[in-house]
This record gives sequence, C-alpha cells and structure tokens, in this order.
Amino acid sequence: MVESGKYASNALFLEDLRVGKRFSSASHTIDEVQIKAFAAQFDPQPFHLDGAAAKTTLFGGLAASGWHTAAITMKLLVESGLPLSGGIIGSGGEVSWPKPTRPDDTLTVVSEIEEVTPSRSRPDRGMIRVRSETRNQYGEIVQILIAKLVVPRRPALGPDVSPTGGVTLPRAAER
Amino acid sequence: MVESGKYASNALFLEDLRVGKRFSSASHTIDEVQIKAFAAQFDPQPFHLDGAAAKTTLFGGLAASGWHTAAITMKLLVESGLPLSGGIIGSGGEVSWPKPTRPDDTLTVVSEIEEVTPSRSRPDRGMIRVRSETRNQYGEIVQILIAKLVVPRRPALGPDVSPTGGVTLPRAAER
Repeated sequence: MVESGKYASNALFLEDLRVGKRFSSASHTIDEVQIKAFAAQFDPQPFHLDGAAAKTTLFGGLAASGWHTAAITMKLLVESGLPLSGGIIGSGGEVSWPKPTRPDDTLTVVSEIEEVTPSRSRPDRGMIRVRSETRNQYGEIVQILIAKLVVPRRPALGPDVSPTGGVTLPRAAER
Repeated sequence: MVESGKYASNALFLEDLRVGKRFSSASHTIDEVQIKAFAAQFDPQPFHLDGAAAKTTLFGGLAASGWHTAAITMKLLVESGLPLSGGIIGSGGEVSWPKPTRPDDTLTVVSEIEEVTPSRSRPDRGMIRVRSETRNQYGEIVQILIAKLVVPRRPALGPDVSPTGGVTLPRAAER
C-alpha cells in the first residue's frame, strides 16, 4: 500500500487521505561536497566541515548537519514523497536523528498518515499528522519527522458532480 | 542575565549551565535571493520561489521555507548564540513556526536552558534541553525550537586542581 508520490499530476485533498496511507519518495545521494557546503553556510562545526577533525569528535568521522538531513527530506517530500494539493505546508513538528547521514549515503523517505482532522472553523481545509522516516541505503533510519500539515478540502465541482450541488455545506453539517 | 555567546573563547561545560541561564545571538538578515536559493535546492514550492505566485497562497506573499529559518537559527546558535564546549550536537527536538520569515527580515535567537541532566552511564557528559526563540526585527517569533543537546562535562585537570585527583569517579558516586 505504498504509493509513489507524483506532486503535480496526482495531488491529494483532505478527503483522499486516510490514517495508515503510505507514500514513498524518490532518492537523493549526498556527498562530501554537499555536506561541507551546507555546513559552511548553516552549521559550521568541525564534524560537518572537516573529515580529519571529525574523527576525534562524537561523530567519529564526517557527518551531515541534522538540518541538512531535514532539508533533503523536505526536498524529497516536495518533489515526490507526499503529493498534497496546495503543497506541503507545516506549522511544525518533532524531529529526531537516530544516526548521522554520512558522505555518499542515498536517502529515501517513507511517510505514513497518522491523523486526519477536518477544521471546525475553516470548512475549506483540515490538518494531518504525518510520520516521515528517512532511511539510508542500509535501511537505517537517519531521521524521524512527525509533522502537522495543512491540507485543503476538495472544492465543490458544481451541480453535475458535487453531491451538495456546489453549495458549501453549513458548518453544522460537519462532523 | 542574557550573555552574548562567544563560541571558541568562552565555551561552556555541563557544570557551567543552570536552568534559566539565557544566551542571545548575533543577527542575520535574509533577503529574497537567499529565500529563493534555499527553496530551489530544498523546498521548491511556489510560495518560497515566486512572489507573484505566493500572493494567491496561504502565505499571501513570498515566505522562507521553515527549514531555512531552522538552518539560519542553527548558524546563529553555532556562531554566537550558544557557546557550548564540544559544539552544538543535538539528538532532535520540537520545532514550530508561528509566523513565516519574510524577505529582509533580520533574525536573532534567544536561548534559555530548561533542563540540565548529567548522564548516569557516561560520566564525561550530560544532556541539556534548550528553548531557542527566533524573532524578527519586530520582535515577532518566527520559530520556537526545543532541542536536546549533548554537552561534555569539564575534564579533570590533574591532582593539583581536580577534587578527585584526576581519577574518574565510579558510577555509584554519581547522583
């Protein structure tokens, strides 16, 4: 039941999402050049910048910034891993990095819908909670992200198609 | 009681940290070029890439990726905002973005130690929980990060200085 996401052509509305639905992304291979470039700009610490210096640290060798792993995860979700209509818009979440991302790792993301909640105050949208696990080529988890995202509801399509005749349901009719 | 961090010259060990201790970072001004460059690489969605297209979205105008705000926050913490010996090494945390970061925003980070916990199994280190609020030039919070970080304990300095004569205390002596 893992679907490969296709962002533009197959975008999903809140009504299309169910708890337990899973999506898998394409892959991204990171290298030493990418790791050092991100670190120089955003996380200039020896274990992200210099392989020799990294050996004497807690990491035992060059490792990507956790925020770099998070950014690559986002790229994979946006481009292929989570085809939501309206895009991927989050208010926040929990992130953890059980293992570091290393040079030449190939990362993929599998996401699972954990909660779907229509908004009571905004009939055009809802919130979902999604768990996204980012794994390397050995199947080891390098990041777990539990994110809360805003997802639009499917707009009414007019009298021929919509069961409500194109009329927005009053709020009292929402669950 | 806000201290301005100085990474290399003033790095702190676990023993130097107390709940309630605060640190403030230098500032970083973001612009449209930075927002679009980060988005093109890691979060290629219209509201992060194109000001005109962004107007019709939930954001109402160009906004930085939340992961870009997180990455800039990390840069500010590493360079000036949290002078920990051993650097800033996190196992994860909670992040939220109450408001988007906009072009020409100037961001600063104030961090407060919320918890200090010596390790029971590793006498050379401990964990801290830190709340870091990233604000724009209007004082509005654009990100709250609650991170768990690993911090080394101060190494024993030898018989003349260390109360344990340079000998590592047995685990039974730890609290």
